[in-house]
Amino acid sequence: SAKGISNARVFAPYTVYKGKAAFSVSPLLPTFSKIDSGSASLKVDRRGCMMLTFWPAVGERKYDWEKRQKFALSPTEVGSLISMGAHDGSEFFHDPSMKSSNAGQVSKKLYIKALDGGNGYMISLTVTNNILKSNERFNVPLTTAEFAVLKTACSFALPHIIGWDWLINQSRNDMAGSPSKVNPQLLDLEWDK
Amino acid sequence: SAKGISNARVFAPYTVYKGKAAFSVSPLLPTFSKIDSGSASLKVDRRGCMMLTFWPAVGERKYDWEKRQKFALSPTEVGSLISMGAHDGSEFFHDPSMKSSNAGQVSKKLYIKALDGGNGYMISLTVTNNILKSNERFNVPLTTAEFAVLKTACSFALPHIIGWDWLINQSRNDMAGSPSKVNPQLLDLEWDK
Amino acid sequence: SAKGISNARVFAPYTVYKGKAAFSVSPLLPTFSKIDSGSASLKVDRRGCMMLTFWPAVGERKYDWEKRQKFALSPTEVGSLISMGAHDGSEFFHDPSMKSSNAGQVSKKLYIKALDGGNGYMISLTVTNNILKSNERFNVPLTTAEFAVLKTACSFALPHIIGWDWLINQSRNDMAGSPSKVNPQLLDLEWDK
Amino acid sequence: SAKGISNARVFAPYTVYKGKAAFSVSPLLPTFSKIDSGSASLKVDRRGCMMLTFWPAVGERKYDWEKRQKFALSPTEVGSLISMGAHDGSEFFHDPSMKSSNAGQVSKKLYIKALDGGNGYMISLTVTNNILKSNERFNVPLTTAEFAVLKTACSFALPHIIGWDWLINQSRNDMAGSPSKVNPQLLDLEWDK
Repeated sequence: SAKGISNARVFAPYTVYKGKAAFSVSPLLPTFSKIDSGSASLKVDRRGCMMLTFWPAVGERKYDWEKRQKFALSPTEVGSLISMGAHDGSEFFHDPSMKSSNAGQVSKKLYIKALDGGNGYMISLTVTNNILKSNERFNVPLTTAEFAVLKTACSFALPHIIGWDWLINQSRNDMAGSPSKVNPQLLDLEWDK
Repeated sequence: SAKGISNARVFAPYTVYKGKAAFSVSPLLPTFSKIDSGSASLKVDRRGCMMLTFWPAVGERKYDWEKRQKFALSPTEVGSLISMGAHDGSEFFHDPSMKSSNAGQVSKKLYIKALDGGNGYMISLTVTNNILKSNERFNVPLTTAEFAVLKTACSFALPHIIGWDWLINQSRNDMAGSPSKVNPQLLDLEWDK
Repeated sequence: SAKGISNARVFAPYTVYKGKAAFSVSPLLPTFSKIDSGSASLKVDRRGCMMLTFWPAVGERKYDWEKRQKFALSPTEVGSLISMGAHDGSEFFHDPSMKSSNAGQVSKKLYIKALDGGNGYMISLTVTNNILKSNERFNVPLTTAEFAVLKTACSFALPHIIGWDWLINQSRNDMAGSPSKVNPQLLDLEWDK
Repeated sequence: SAKGISNARVFAPYTVYKGKAAFSVSPLLPTFSKIDSGSASLKVDRRGCMMLTFWPAVGERKYDWEKRQKFALSPTEVGSLISMGAHDGSEFFHDPSMKSSNAGQVSKKLYIKALDGGNGYMISLTVTNNILKSNERFNVPLTTAEFAVLKTACSFALPHIIGWDWLINQSRNDMAGSPSKVNPQLLDLEWDK
């Protein structure tokens, strides 16, 4: 059964359903790989992110999951979100094909803007596809309470998406193995190179 | 013994006893179920909550647990509580039989209001039963210190009641199983559907 | 070796050494006991606390551990500490023999006071022994940075000293045991008694 | 494989690359040792720190890792960083050979200063070597978002670098071993010596 868990994928997004679209957020953890094939040491292979997903309403309380669009907030973009004050705004631009031959075909813009009166935030995703000449826009108003969940959950997740819970878990495992001689990180002191 | 723990239920509410009533709060974790019978993947079956319990004083330092009433704060309602400023108030309305044929028979109202002078909060639960023609009210004044415990403990619990600690635990288990090839979530990138 | 760890006691206080006294803080976790002998369910037997220890300087950079005095902050007192603003003060009074026949023989007073100019805090413990006619006082000035460590570390520890990490660990163990049927807490819903 | 993990070292720094230098931060956990050879009890042998690393740009998007310099923030220095307001500054001075015969040969100064207009911070490391008559300086401007990641990640890491996650893990292990009789810390009460 432990093995069953080990291979299990767990889905636990925080989701809000509003008039024109639904919005969910879920952490996507980093991946690690061995530094070299003979080594037990690991480095982050791909940094984690907070995955935002938007999908449109297509009727009363009906939403079309097939038309979903995603936006992956990097750790630094998460830092921007969690440091937003009650009257601030943030904008993020992504090109999912950046650095490939398809660069510029699709662009994604995420806006987060405080609503007038300080009663929450509007979160909007625009996806422009220059090949298909399409332009999709999702607007989801978040209450102050929903935004507080988003900030608190993102603050919780941030150390995990940068992989720091692994550093800490590592030490715990070291400890279990040999309580009297721990933490090879010790070798890496301030005055070392 | 590990097995004993695995089936154990742990009770650790944070409780305050005041003149007219006692109040306790405890996180109630989400439940998960397999996405389909052949799969090891899990989804949240029922979101967690913060369970608030009130029970009346029936004499000096005597409280009647049999007369307790409960109010389950959803994750978004927890977001509302933890974002309350020193002079704010919150109101929540629940119908425990919502969407059933008994809807409207019982209604519960929770008020949280800053006390004059900023010296804490009044937290009140009113339970109205339209069949029994009964109306119960619990008033519990919380000091600034007690409310700080409530906010800090709720902020800690929030990621857990939405199930995000499971996402993170999952990755840890993946890692233990195969350090060089991890995190199937990788397949679910920003530009995927 | 895992067994060795299981019985190990770990000492990791956060300590500051100042001119007249040293001060350390360390969390003391709650203890649990079975609800009844036949049950696997556990309840908090004794709530945890933050244990503050003071001991006097007896020479340049020399401190006398034998003359230490302790003060155990309850969860609510920790709430008071972590909600202190830059210009606030807190006072706590304890009688270690409260409710016993020795009540009133020894009293302990802890003061935390913002320093003029907002450059940190003075933390003072006074222990008065009416039998021995003794009165000991420890004064430790904390910088803003040291107080930030104290607040951050106490905020981290608070959910643990009230035992909520156990609630969460419990669910994790449930999960490992049977991924498709979890969390007996489910039976305890808002409308149950 | 669990054993493999136990000996693995994990690298997961949070890194920013700027025009003149790159900057990374990573927690370095404390080490523990047995209190005496016959005992299972452990004490912190060396406190953890947040390790900051700077290395210079040597061309467009090229950085020279061989020329890196490190600065180890102590827990109290981390407290200083995480309590910085939007217009504050911090300065830290280290002598890596302090208390040895090489004291004074090398000095390191770390400055963190809010940028005009509140749009982020400048973080600077100066390493002066009086023997080699060398002086190296690294300037890395951090956006508000990057500094928020730094603060959030350091706040997360602080309890871990002082070793408090071990205190908590210990109790969990105690529990697994004997659910009905836990926490030897109980013996160490407020009125004990």
